[in-house]
Amino acid sequence: MDERRLVWTAPGTLADLNDLPRDARAQLEIVEIPADPLADQRLAEVRVLIPPLVRNQADDGYDLKTLIASASRLDLVQALTSGVDWIVDLIPAEVTLCSVRGAYDDLMAELMLAGILAVYKEIPHHAAAQARGRWEPRQVRVLGGSRVLFVGYGSIAQCLEKYLLPFGVEVRRVARRPREGVDGISELSVLLPGADIVVVLTPLTAQTQGLIDEEFLTLMKPGALLVNGARGLVADTEALIAAAERGKVRAYLDVTDPEPLPDGHALWSAPGVFITPHIGSLVPENRERAFAVVRENLISWARGETLRNVVAGDY
Amino acid sequence: MDERRLVWTAPGTLADLNDLPRDARAQLEIVEIPADPLADQRLAEVRVLIPPLVRNQADDGYDLKTLIASASRLDLVQALTSGVDWIVDLIPAEVTLCSVRGAYDDLMAELMLAGILAVYKEIPHHAAAQARGRWEPRQVRVLGGSRVLFVGYGSIAQCLEKYLLPFGVEVRRVARRPREGVDGISELSVLLPGADIVVVLTPLTAQTQGLIDEEFLTLMKPGALLVNGARGLVADTEALIAAAERGKVRAYLDVTDPEPLPDGHALWSAPGVFITPHIGSLVPENRERAFAVVRENLISWARGETLRNVVAGDY
Ligand SMILES: NC(=O)c1ccc[n+]([C@@H]2O[C@H](COP(=O)([O-])OP(=O)(O)OC[C@H]3O[C@@H](n4cnc5c(N)ncnc54)[C@H](OP(=O)(O)O)[C@@H]3O)[C@@H](O)[C@H]2O)c1
Ligand SMILES: NC(=O)c1ccc[n+]([C@@H]2O[C@H](COP(=O)([O-])OP(=O)(O)OC[C@H]3O[C@@H](n4cnc5c(N)ncnc54)[C@H](OP(=O)(O)O)[C@@H]3O)[C@@H](O)[C@H]2O)c1
Repeated sequence: MDERRLVWTAPGTLADLNDLPRDARAQLEIVEIPADPLADQRLAEVRVLIPPLVRNQADDGYDLKTLIASASRLDLVQALTSGVDWIVDLIPAEVTLCSVRGAYDDLMAELMLAGILAVYKEIPHHAAAQARGRWEPRQVRVLGGSRVLFVGYGSIAQCLEKYLLPFGVEVRRVARRPREGVDGISELSVLLPGADIVVVLTPLTAQTQGLIDEEFLTLMKPGALLVNGARGLVADTEALIAAAERGKVRAYLDVTDPEPLPDGHALWSAPGVFITPHIGSLVPENRERAFAVVRENLISWARGETLRNVVAGDY
Repeated sequence: MDERRLVWTAPGTLADLNDLPRDARAQLEIVEIPADPLADQRLAEVRVLIPPLVRNQADDGYDLKTLIASASRLDLVQALTSGVDWIVDLIPAEVTLCSVRGAYDDLMAELMLAGILAVYKEIPHHAAAQARGRWEPRQVRVLGGSRVLFVGYGSIAQCLEKYLLPFGVEVRRVARRPREGVDGISELSVLLPGADIVVVLTPLTAQTQGLIDEEFLTLMKPGALLVNGARGLVADTEALIAAAERGKVRAYLDVTDPEPLPDGHALWSAPGVFITPHIGSLVPENRERAFAVVRENLISWARGETLRNVVAGDY
């Protein structure tokens, strides 16, 4: 009798999807993923799956890979994250995977700039001096005039560039596909030695895992600043600690390997390394932001229109 | 025999003035302020005085006010600072005072943004957690969409505005002289309640001393951020501590009253207050920057041309 197509969404997120337009509503039956989804009799009817955030996955009591593989009519998996490294390998060829790419661009770009300025203005030192109640001015550096190299020039990097340009920085860019104004990754060894700030904003893929290795760090200009906002595994943590310890580079990291970084890990105290604990999208509105993208994609899917942020190719 | 006009410049700064163009050199005899200037026989010949930075004043062993008053042919006092509150009262009516306004605009604007982002992204908390080796993410705030009110819209504030606009903030401005796009100070009580961030960048004058008082802070939006990059005395420190303690406002201060802020002063630990120890112009190149402005003014003075950054009127 009910010909609406079944959408399973993460527990607690139903309210985030309750204002779809009438035509999409008529097409879709949206319910929360049941407690024991693998045993659920409607599993074979699921067409769209919106799985919980990667962080809650372990708590859910079922294996996401098995769930996706068992949902035989599944057409679309819509992730609630903009990086999809944690789920991309679980998706069969005939199923489309979408991210919420774009949902946090401004937040991430603000954070990257906050971290860069924190290093340039010695904010961790000055904050620590304040905590001790001591007036201990330390010399600062000028951001203006710096040469910035983007490694990965996607949604977030382009937003950060917009924020950086008024300071009078000089920008170079490297990405997967070379194009006007953007060099291919093969140019990296030529561009690294000239950069004062290297900002890494690629996805984590087989190609980018360990990209920031000893060779990469050795090519960097002495004293330059490495910024990793991508994923911890894009850097070789041991190589990074070694480079920091010999004073070769400074670093600002919002992502680490592993995460959470354990108490007492050597990266915490590597000299010149400033770490924030993956807070790029940690705002009260972050769920709203993700669902703004999800809602749009769900409407497009119901109408048979083009989806946004399809994860494709050699991701 | 020597008809060159006498310039006394701060000890150790002669080299900063050794590349004047030939015509200016021919006009000027530049020497360092002697060890005992008040007893010096050439005191009455001094036409231009470039006194040491305010910070070294106490070490100089003479009274700057007496020096200026005794230099009977003095025409120009060229300060090495952009704020001249420390010297303006020492200048007789017939003597011109110039600042190095503009020399540190980008540095100050970078620092103000670093401080704003530090508060919005909880950088002091995250840096302290890192120092303890702990992964303790705290929610952050979005700068984009904030309403920013500039109190004082001069050289530094205009530069900061340029850096802030790409974030998508909404800007209002208040200054001494109302003009297109800039309201008079009388509008302050109307504008304060609507601002998420209030950035104070006025000079310290009789009019601005204590401007940030209890009334000002009470008018601010609850939880809004006060930024003081001007001078410590522009704020009533007691009122500011009280407002912070009752959670009314947060603050970022690069200037305090007194300076240096003594160990254990209550402002150090006022909740939600982040302090940097007057580091706005604390870069290795800061002397070079100041003298770039000074050199230009000295050339103009030698040629009888218009001077830059003349401090005038009801400063
Ligand atoms: N820290 C956080 O809280 C947080 C939050 C959000 C996202 N992130 C991370 O940031 C990443 C980037 O996000 P985004 O939205 O900007 O992604 P995006 O728009 O997909 O851009 C990714 C960029 O990386 C480039 N790239 C991909 N593979 C590459 C390779 N092998 N070598 C060089 N460049 C390569 C792409 O090149 P093309 O332009 O040629 O395709 C593109 O320019 C996400 O994948 C996620 O891991 C972190
Ligand atoms: N923290 C540091 O390291 C550092 C470094 C440099 C400077 N500073 C401080 O920053 C101050 C501002 O520097 P700046 O170069 O931007 O100065 P500026 O170009 O002279 O601008 C000062 C602004 O304040 C306004 N103003 C003056 N009196 C006012 C009043 N009574 N009420 C409201 N607005 C008033 C002026 O109004 P009009 O536009 O109408 O004239 C102008 O817009 C300096 O005086 C100095 O104290 C601090």
